[in-house]
Amino acid sequence: MKIRVLVSLKPGVLDPQGRAVHHALEGLGFKGVDDVRIGRTVELDVADDTSDEALNEMCEKLLANTVIENYKIEKLG
Amino acid sequence: MKIRVLVSLKPGVLDPQGRAVHHALEGLGFKGVDDVRIGRTVELDVADDTSDEALNEMCEKLLANTVIENYKIEKLG
Repeated sequence: MKIRVLVSLKPGVLDPQGRAVHHALEGLGFKGVDDVRIGRTVELDVADDTSDEALNEMCEKLLANTVIENYKIEKLG
Repeated sequence: MKIRVLVSLKPGVLDPQGRAVHHALEGLGFKGVDDVRIGRTVELDVADDTSDEALNEMCEKLLANTVIENYKIEKLG
């Protein structure tokens, strides 16, 4: 079973990497970019019988820092 | 317009970060994890009239290293 975990910074948490990308896009001449936020994805190939609880636990314990990050689990089938 | 760009390593490109996460998950006692690949997301807030060509150009020029990475553009509305 393919799983994608999207990890993003919580709203309000400063994202210097996003600001740098925003600045670089403007420097390259792209207009109309209002905001840029960088996150990461973790694509997991797990056994089909892996429970939602186990996936949540992986995120809480390792994949995301839940103090400053949100995560979303998507099943890709 | 909210845009999400998913950047992932091409198949065959070594992913040491993914291997480290895989190893750590096993160390934490999670069974049945076959593979882990790490990617990143760039969430952009752009003007509604931004063309698909401009978005592609942002990816090709800055957001992804197309030698080793694939990218996918998703419109979140």
